[in-house]
Amino acid sequence: MSGYAPFSGGFPPSGALPRARTFLWDCGQRCDVTPFERRTDAARAALEDAGADALVCVPGRNLQYLTGFAESQRERQLFLIVPAAGEPTFFVPALSESQIRRETWVPTVRAWGDDADPVAALAGCFDDLGVPTTPRLLVDDTMWATFVQDLREVRPAATVGLASEVLSELRVRKDPAERDALRRAAEAADEAMRRVRALGSDAVGLTEAELVGRIESSLTAVGGDGVAFETIVGSGPNGAMPHHAHGERRIEAGDPVVLDFGTRVDGYPSDQTRTVVFEGDPGERFREVHATVERAQSAAVDAIEPGVTADAIDAAARSVIEAAGYGEAFVHRTGHGVGLDVHEEPYIVAGNDRKLEPGMVFSVEPGIYLDGAFGVRIEDLVVVTDDGAEPLNRTDRGWRC
Amino acid sequence: MSGYAPFSGGFPPSGALPRARTFLWDCGQRCDVTPFERRTDAARAALEDAGADALVCVPGRNLQYLTGFAESQRERQLFLIVPAAGEPTFFVPALSESQIRRETWVPTVRAWGDDADPVAALAGCFDDLGVPTTPRLLVDDTMWATFVQDLREVRPAATVGLASEVLSELRVRKDPAERDALRRAAEAADEAMRRVRALGSDAVGLTEAELVGRIESSLTAVGGDGVAFETIVGSGPNGAMPHHAHGERRIEAGDPVVLDFGTRVDGYPSDQTRTVVFEGDPGERFREVHATVERAQSAAVDAIEPGVTADAIDAAARSVIEAAGYGEAFVHRTGHGVGLDVHEEPYIVAGNDRKLEPGMVFSVEPGIYLDGAFGVRIEDLVVVTDDGAEPLNRTDRGWRC
Repeated sequence: MSGYAPFSGGFPPSGALPRARTFLWDCGQRCDVTPFERRTDAARAALEDAGADALVCVPGRNLQYLTGFAESQRERQLFLIVPAAGEPTFFVPALSESQIRRETWVPTVRAWGDDADPVAALAGCFDDLGVPTTPRLLVDDTMWATFVQDLREVRPAATVGLASEVLSELRVRKDPAERDALRRAAEAADEAMRRVRALGSDAVGLTEAELVGRIESSLTAVGGDGVAFETIVGSGPNGAMPHHAHGERRIEAGDPVVLDFGTRVDGYPSDQTRTVVFEGDPGERFREVHATVERAQSAAVDAIEPGVTADAIDAAARSVIEAAGYGEAFVHRTGHGVGLDVHEEPYIVAGNDRKLEPGMVFSVEPGIYLDGAFGVRIEDLVVVTDDGAEPLNRTDRGWRC
Repeated sequence: MSGYAPFSGGFPPSGALPRARTFLWDCGQRCDVTPFERRTDAARAALEDAGADALVCVPGRNLQYLTGFAESQRERQLFLIVPAAGEPTFFVPALSESQIRRETWVPTVRAWGDDADPVAALAGCFDDLGVPTTPRLLVDDTMWATFVQDLREVRPAATVGLASEVLSELRVRKDPAERDALRRAAEAADEAMRRVRALGSDAVGLTEAELVGRIESSLTAVGGDGVAFETIVGSGPNGAMPHHAHGERRIEAGDPVVLDFGTRVDGYPSDQTRTVVFEGDPGERFREVHATVERAQSAAVDAIEPGVTADAIDAAARSVIEAAGYGEAFVHRTGHGVGLDVHEEPYIVAGNDRKLEPGMVFSVEPGIYLDGAFGVRIEDLVVVTDDGAEPLNRTDRGWRC
């Protein structure tokens, strides 16, 4: 790509990228670009294949994927325009211009001031980029209607589709920079899990909510950025409700406790689950159920390789649990893809005949839920490799603390 | 409105509304409806005036305004459809049906299950509601593009406009239930401010971030629901940067400290600012500047009455500050409307010739910012009354703790 003026010798200065070292990896055809630029190139190629003239993104996960810019949608028009032919261009409020130039690789930035009519400015930008008068535009799936209206004002004859048409397929296979971030997020969650387990008998007497506080402090202490989703501590019978987050119940000796939490590193989340007993004897039935879930989880991970369907991975876990007589108590799918979104493709669920491919990342999290008694869930994230699966989580899966 | 089956005798059962007592107020023409239903009636009348056939809202502030349902937009189609003629109808995922029935006044709820095609189900709903084949639809300004696409699939010949076309004018005048919630949110913030001031010399030595922790704990302790915006503690020279939120600087004796925070009660925010000195002597210049800002704030509040322009209120504050020689140091507008959104119409800014009307609620918050030295801002929320303004905040405006 031309116009990459701020770079010299084909390499970005340190500090120009969120994590400069990631772009040194995976040097297939081009070593002189960041992962973000490579993804944008791929999106542009996919646009051509889809017969679309331009992709228009707003702040959100797709824009983060293409540029690293990780903010939320606000009132003022801020778009990344990726024409099928032509330079990717940021159209931004003047207030955001310096931030966009500092935080993203995109060299072409058009800023509009508060004294300008943003729709007229956008029309000028479209004209300069050579967007045809009757284009096919793919707009971000979460773009606000008010911005879709602006695009329709600028190109009244446009046909409008959704960005997911080209970006979903790209995002489902994680590139090396993404796998690196996911690996480090998993390491942070693993370290927090070790610290929580180390509480041992000190956890007895804490409320679930108090233990959540300890977990979230640990996640921050190990370098995580906040929580990736609402932290789950399901103690005793509360563990039997898969959607229970946490409450005021105090943890007792002998309680099985479902611990499901995650944090973010470089924007990417972790998501893992262990079911532990901080102190005391949980009883024979729990031991049997826990061993069953462990076997089911291993069976599913062992079944992973490219070309196998998502459905088959679900079946591998489910058949172990059914054989043990707990089929009715495994009330959810076996897993979900994990990327910038904590829940995305591929879904590891009965009936999904999507074939696994190298670079896909998903959770494997079978569970057994015995109403009024306890629940057991064990979850690791895995990356599909050329011949199997690489687990991202590596902590002890046993229940003893 | 007919079909209000769950109610008997024209009154809702207790528990059917977030705050049942609010609907007993303001019984102008109809005492048998909730504020939400009255707002929806008004929106429907406005739709007719605008020549629109239906309003379609997604989870967000407009939906909260019309129904009290206060969630965020998610992947599954969840719409409130308000036809210009016909019953307001919720179109919701089956998973959400019981919550919608429990939490909102809307009697007609159409649920679609995970085994259904939501777009086909939506088409059936539109047909049953008698939405014409070439309708004019007003869609929520923040509706995701993917849902706008669904509507276009259901009604390909529709003309699409934005919900703000009818709802902005309704929302700008707060009804009694809204004023009540805003008043209680202001009371919570006032009580938290009293507790913070009571720290006195105990606040000296805390970092700004630590003081933020104390403030946010106080907001929760007095019944507030989280923070309405990022809490600002600007100590010493940091107070001179209006956009500084907080940092690691430690508060020193003699420091002026800008405290700007808010919480929510029943969904409505508070927003008030005091500039205080926890201990010690801030010096003569600070005392002069603080007195100037106090006079400017009072002058603006005194100028408020129906028919006066927003511009004139800004001028009333600005002229006091200019006369004192600090005009250049008052770098922002005098205020902003406050409702479900913390920033909304009316904006109290030079050039805004919008006339004030009873029921409008906005902030009055002049400030003086002396680079490298300190800042002073004093902010209260006010309601425009029939002949003046009612302040919602009532704590001491002085700087001594």
